[in-house]
Amino acid sequence: MLRIRPKQIGLAPGSLVHVGDRPEEPSRLSMMAYDSETLSEAVDVSVEACLQQRGASGVTWVNLDGVHDIPRLEALGTGFGLHSLALEDILNTDHRPKCEDFETSFLLILKMLFFDSETERVRSEQVSLVFGAGYVLTFQERQGDVFDAVRARLRRQGSRTRERGADYLAYALVDSIVDSYYHILERLGDSLADLEEAMTDQPTRDELTRIHQLKGEMTLIRRAIWPLRDLVSGLQRDESTLVSEGTRIYLRDLYDHTIQVMDTVEIYRESLANLLDLYLSSVSQRTNEVMRVLTIMATLFIPLTFIVGVYGMNFDHMPELHWRYGYGMVWGVMLVGTGAMVGYFKRKDWF
Amino acid sequence: MLRIRPKQIGLAPGSLVHVGDRPEEPSRLSMMAYDSETLSEAVDVSVEACLQQRGASGVTWVNLDGVHDIPRLEALGTGFGLHSLALEDILNTDHRPKCEDFETSFLLILKMLFFDSETERVRSEQVSLVFGAGYVLTFQERQGDVFDAVRARLRRQGSRTRERGADYLAYALVDSIVDSYYHILERLGDSLADLEEAMTDQPTRDELTRIHQLKGEMTLIRRAIWPLRDLVSGLQRDESTLVSEGTRIYLRDLYDHTIQVMDTVEIYRESLANLLDLYLSSVSQRTNEVMRVLTIMATLFIPLTFIVGVYGMNFDHMPELHWRYGYGMVWGVMLVGTGAMVGYFKRKDWF
Amino acid sequence: MLRIRPKQIGLAPGSLVHVGDRPEEPSRLSMMAYDSETLSEAVDVSVEACLQQRGASGVTWVNLDGVHDIPRLEALGTGFGLHSLALEDILNTDHRPKCEDFETSFLLILKMLFFDSETERVRSEQVSLVFGAGYVLTFQERQGDVFDAVRARLRRQGSRTRERGADYLAYALVDSIVDSYYHILERLGDSLADLEEAMTDQPTRDELTRIHQLKGEMTLIRRAIWPLRDLVSGLQRDESTLVSEGTRIYLRDLYDHTIQVMDTVEIYRESLANLLDLYLSSVSQRTNEVMRVLTIMATLFIPLTFIVGVYGMNFDHMPELHWRYGYGMVWGVMLVGTGAMVGYFKRKDWF
Amino acid sequence: MLRIRPKQIGLAPGSLVHVGDRPEEPSRLSMMAYDSETLSEAVDVSVEACLQQRGASGVTWVNLDGVHDIPRLEALGTGFGLHSLALEDILNTDHRPKCEDFETSFLLILKMLFFDSETERVRSEQVSLVFGAGYVLTFQERQGDVFDAVRARLRRQGSRTRERGADYLAYALVDSIVDSYYHILERLGDSLADLEEAMTDQPTRDELTRIHQLKGEMTLIRRAIWPLRDLVSGLQRDESTLVSEGTRIYLRDLYDHTIQVMDTVEIYRESLANLLDLYLSSVSQRTNEVMRVLTIMATLFIPLTFIVGVYGMNFDHMPELHWRYGYGMVWGVMLVGTGAMVGYFKRKDWF
Amino acid sequence: MLRIRPKQIGLAPGSLVHVGDRPEEPSRLSMMAYDSETLSEAVDVSVEACLQQRGASGVTWVNLDGVHDIPRLEALGTGFGLHSLALEDILNTDHRPKCEDFETSFLLILKMLFFDSETERVRSEQVSLVFGAGYVLTFQERQGDVFDAVRARLRRQGSRTRERGADYLAYALVDSIVDSYYHILERLGDSLADLEEAMTDQPTRDELTRIHQLKGEMTLIRRAIWPLRDLVSGLQRDESTLVSEGTRIYLRDLYDHTIQVMDTVEIYRESLANLLDLYLSSVSQRTNEVMRVLTIMATLFIPLTFIVGVYGMNFDHMPELHWRYGYGMVWGVMLVGTGAMVGYFKRKDWF
Repeated sequence: MLRIRPKQIGLAPGSLVHVGDRPEEPSRLSMMAYDSETLSEAVDVSVEACLQQRGASGVTWVNLDGVHDIPRLEALGTGFGLHSLALEDILNTDHRPKCEDFETSFLLILKMLFFDSETERVRSEQVSLVFGAGYVLTFQERQGDVFDAVRARLRRQGSRTRERGADYLAYALVDSIVDSYYHILERLGDSLADLEEAMTDQPTRDELTRIHQLKGEMTLIRRAIWPLRDLVSGLQRDESTLVSEGTRIYLRDLYDHTIQVMDTVEIYRESLANLLDLYLSSVSQRTNEVMRVLTIMATLFIPLTFIVGVYGMNFDHMPELHWRYGYGMVWGVMLVGTGAMVGYFKRKDWF
Repeated sequence: MLRIRPKQIGLAPGSLVHVGDRPEEPSRLSMMAYDSETLSEAVDVSVEACLQQRGASGVTWVNLDGVHDIPRLEALGTGFGLHSLALEDILNTDHRPKCEDFETSFLLILKMLFFDSETERVRSEQVSLVFGAGYVLTFQERQGDVFDAVRARLRRQGSRTRERGADYLAYALVDSIVDSYYHILERLGDSLADLEEAMTDQPTRDELTRIHQLKGEMTLIRRAIWPLRDLVSGLQRDESTLVSEGTRIYLRDLYDHTIQVMDTVEIYRESLANLLDLYLSSVSQRTNEVMRVLTIMATLFIPLTFIVGVYGMNFDHMPELHWRYGYGMVWGVMLVGTGAMVGYFKRKDWF
Repeated sequence: MLRIRPKQIGLAPGSLVHVGDRPEEPSRLSMMAYDSETLSEAVDVSVEACLQQRGASGVTWVNLDGVHDIPRLEALGTGFGLHSLALEDILNTDHRPKCEDFETSFLLILKMLFFDSETERVRSEQVSLVFGAGYVLTFQERQGDVFDAVRARLRRQGSRTRERGADYLAYALVDSIVDSYYHILERLGDSLADLEEAMTDQPTRDELTRIHQLKGEMTLIRRAIWPLRDLVSGLQRDESTLVSEGTRIYLRDLYDHTIQVMDTVEIYRESLANLLDLYLSSVSQRTNEVMRVLTIMATLFIPLTFIVGVYGMNFDHMPELHWRYGYGMVWGVMLVGTGAMVGYFKRKDWF
Repeated sequence: MLRIRPKQIGLAPGSLVHVGDRPEEPSRLSMMAYDSETLSEAVDVSVEACLQQRGASGVTWVNLDGVHDIPRLEALGTGFGLHSLALEDILNTDHRPKCEDFETSFLLILKMLFFDSETERVRSEQVSLVFGAGYVLTFQERQGDVFDAVRARLRRQGSRTRERGADYLAYALVDSIVDSYYHILERLGDSLADLEEAMTDQPTRDELTRIHQLKGEMTLIRRAIWPLRDLVSGLQRDESTLVSEGTRIYLRDLYDHTIQVMDTVEIYRESLANLLDLYLSSVSQRTNEVMRVLTIMATLFIPLTFIVGVYGMNFDHMPELHWRYGYGMVWGVMLVGTGAMVGYFKRKDWF
Repeated sequence: MLRIRPKQIGLAPGSLVHVGDRPEEPSRLSMMAYDSETLSEAVDVSVEACLQQRGASGVTWVNLDGVHDIPRLEALGTGFGLHSLALEDILNTDHRPKCEDFETSFLLILKMLFFDSETERVRSEQVSLVFGAGYVLTFQERQGDVFDAVRARLRRQGSRTRERGADYLAYALVDSIVDSYYHILERLGDSLADLEEAMTDQPTRDELTRIHQLKGEMTLIRRAIWPLRDLVSGLQRDESTLVSEGTRIYLRDLYDHTIQVMDTVEIYRESLANLLDLYLSSVSQRTNEVMRVLTIMATLFIPLTFIVGVYGMNFDHMPELHWRYGYGMVWGVMLVGTGAMVGYFKRKDWF
């Protein structure tokens, strides 16, 4: 997931080549057009219908699921006057999140994060968003997104989203993506808490693998979130007339949210580092304890075994063997020696 | 405590939803209104009474314990003209500390830190503070705060707090929150000193767990304190007329205090890292010592045990067994061998 | 590869001395001259022919393979009016990537990266690029480069590269070098994935050596890529008229690519650090497991061996030896003792 | 020493409360007044005498040993027109070094460092310095300081210190404090060198404790020195007329000194980190060597012991026991086996 | 070498005291005076001769070997109008590299690095350089420097150095010092490569000590080089008329060289850190392998030794001893048990 995909060397810049996994489902175009009074919704529309709607008053939101459908993408791009480099960025689904000002429109590249319950891994999908005067275009890799709540608000007449322009709609869409990060982070927070609890018992290799995996996912998430801060603050401070004063206040709020998400990611990363330290220390400590047990046992019994070995020898002339109390004396020596050892270990705090 | 709480995806921005633990006690509204001459205090007042008082001259301080009481919060917000995003921030009790300038008022979000003697953990509670011309509003999650000393000073006629305006009261409240950090840090400093002392003896798993726990608390405290610096310096440099020149000098002093608190947190964090290093080194060193004892014992006695084993064999033809001084010679060989070993170990500095 | 090569101390600055490995093949000069209508190509041309072409309209691209041919380099330098310090930088093939503005021309120093399939190592080669009004000069250490795709585009009439000036050609050449980094990174990404998989089994010294080697290569790549960002952004923001407005948009795109490459390098470096941590933790963990097995075995059998040693002694007076059930009782004692040990280990979770 | 001391929560800002250890000796006020012609010195003077002197021409230097004497401090503060917050900072002897501009005067808070030969620890003491037009006030925690050399220079007529104003005296005092850091650092450098030497032998727990202790002292020193840089550069760049042009050149020199001190502290910190690494590596390496000895001995003799044990068994039917050369053959087997083992270890480079 | 040397506390600033090792050889003054036409050289000249020459046209370069000769230094200082603080800096041979603008002259403090072949250590020597209109002064601790190549170029009529002014001479001298860093770094690079190769075999304590030593030298070199960057870039951007436009281009080139040197130092430092990691990992890995051998041997033979011990007991009633195939059965049991063990180890991948 963290790998870089090669582009074709030598392609002229602006060449439209899809970079990324190609889903099998066909692309789908849908559209919502609204002003404060009216709302029209259409699914599986043609590019022409979208372009026609654009001329009308109000806001037109066109959503394309499946950017790998290059002809459709190109037709939309031509219709809405996008630069060929913008289309190239939209097609490169490994692109870094960014905000670019094309004077008559803004291009935002974002990452949606999903928790894939099959693989138990976090999965990322690129969402590109273009907005200009009176229109918003969104481009997604696959069907299924986090925009349903925005759609619901659009359908409710009198909602703030309906009252305001394309810039507010763009803000609302970005906001719902940032919202979805909270869900991912909550899940990872649960994993972390589980891990921390498991660590209080004897840690095993499983915990180690889990820490390693979570670290990898944090790297992925960070990669998606870090550029977001610059993106939002760039949009907020931009002097373009495409973003109205009223929307800027909401962007400031959005900025706060991205900061909070980043803070949380950093705290989780720190916690993971702490857990790894704890893991390593625990293993060292346990090795030490195991060694102590071994050493005590070996140190107590190896000399005793030697002593009894001595009197197991078969020499013809071993006077001790014939003494009346020889056997008892050996026991005595061994008990005294063992006692001394135990005392030594006690003094060294080994028990 | 370090977890992030999910917001409801798709809620329109500015929707008032309480995020955080919901305490069981009901909310409580109290009010103090004063100028240099008069002072009136009221507990369990209604929102209307507060709004009525606001018109009067002097400073009105309204304190709400229990922000989960959304209707009351909303009524206060409407009455004092707060932006809906400000109310959303107040309700989100996981918010990052910040200072926001709403032109006719300032919103400060802060964290009070408590030492929960039951769980032996540091607990954090969000305090939101809004101040404008002639009024200060404070919003807390629960009853019980660190403002009693400020209240006492307000009750004393002629005190500086009584003489000055709402900005000074806001400063005094923030100052008392920062003061409370000193208490927490003193406690943690004691814990650190105990830990350091315990480390001079043989460190156990308990110390390791304690280090880990303190590290987690430092992260929590840092999260509460770091944004504070920007908050205070932002307030100090703001050109708003809401903050008087006289109060700015005190803000500079407050800024010094937050720096000192942050310094201390960083020093504690460094000490913890040092302690962990020390712990790990100690464990390694002890393992080494234990190993040395084991190796010395095993290396001395295992060959001896072999030798006595040889003469414990029952072969019919073992000439040594019948020698006159065979037994003595074996002892001689063993003593010489052991002496050589001991010499070797001495040379290697193993004793 | 990471070594620094000494210059001759005391040489006057601007002295032309080749620093680097000297390839055995002779140098080779080639030229492409074009405008939107016509294109002429020549291989193994003389310096004079190049200088003559320069006067003509359109763009002249002169490529020198083998910078160690100092006379030719000097002749080109004089002909195109390069500063002697520029020539010194071109000759020093250990130079850091940089962009320098010589008012009538720009000097870019870049690194091409190759994967040397023989040594399985990444190899770097310096490419110096000078462009001015109507001409581009490229200087390489050896024959063989990544510019073939650019050449192909130049040969295609009507391509964007043909339509535009020398600045666009320079951009296209730099772009193809950055493109080649994607290939290297893809290869290293595969190595990393292999390594990660190998790590889930028992890691050996081989993996350790491989991690170490990849770390070294990352350092090499970073050294080539880091200065590139400043180079591209410097070129983009430069106010020189040598770079046209139209080309600047493409430079912004190129800048995005360098950022993505750098991001990937940083992520790989982080992954390597994580893998090393994982390796170390695994080894610690395995040592601990090995120790546990040893300790269990030794602790169980050493006392037993002692006991049976006792009754192997040959004392005349050992009453137990003559008891009817002495042998059975010894077995009993040993079984009970062993059972107790096993219970102890179970309680300590050692099984 | 690194602990934070709690302030009394809720005290009004500017309340004068002494924070810190309270020495038992009484406070002592001394004064030196001079111009280029005359000099008067007085010890154990009253506050009134100081205030009277202030009116006179020339420079008046008042030094208070023992800031815990609040009445005296307050009298001085009132007499010289200090802000109550300045007095609060002087009393808080845990304050961070800083420079504050009170328009008619500057407040400098500094730390003197002493090597306490009893505890073998570095001790810090706060020195506060206020200077304005014609006067310098210094406030110390205890008697005994590093200003004697400055006093000596003041007593010598014609010295530069006598010729210049209060700003130069303030500079000279700060300079003598920075000078004293050199002494501390030299001592710590000696400790480091000793430690490094001790490390070449077998490191013990003592060295570990010493490293840890030195790390703690470095933290303390850093805390005293880091803010100094900003303090000096702030003073130097300040546009106040209180600091003359001539003195600014000396401040630049002082700035260089603080940088050198900081550099040295950083180098020492790095050396300590290196020593800790070296310590840990040494311990690992030694454990490895010890293990090797143990393993060689055990691996050689344990199988031998088994073999001789076999022929110590008392079965009625053990044909080997009755063979003519059985005993010799056993020895033969054992010697061959041991030789093979030794060969194996040699091949593994264990000797 | 990394130690700080104490200054005498309380000396008035600008007091001339030599800080550093005092070489035993006497000081030596030499002079070169030249313009594009003429050149005069003199060794062991008097200060007066130098001052006389200064008045003449052309450039005068005065070199003093042995700054500990304070009277001479002072005479030169007075003659060339140096500030007393500049002289103090020249005398303090532990000073940090820096560039200071004294309006009519520049003071540069630099470090020459030598490889001392006796101690196999890098040694540093301070070179101070003052240049003004028409003169350059250099101050060294000892005889012997890296300026011979510059001298040779000066002697060659028509060389660029002869044609240009004092600023170019100063540049050429600094350049030759930076050049000498390349030599040191090449040597250290060789050491690093040797170390890396030695590490592929079994690493010993020697390698550890060598890594530690190289780390220390890197710190020393870094300390000499880091401030150099600011020094050169400061000189380059300075608006003083003492540095001509033509020389500034060369300073830019010099700046590139210092960056390259710094890059190399950082890469070496990183390599050293990697090597230390590799060392630690190798030792851990080897300990693990050693442990495995021990555990296998002990686990195989300790139970066998117990079994044979059982039948070495001398009880009167041990029925197994009298069985016909008792001895064979014991061997059978032992072989089966050993086979099971071996299988277990194989399954655990211990072979």
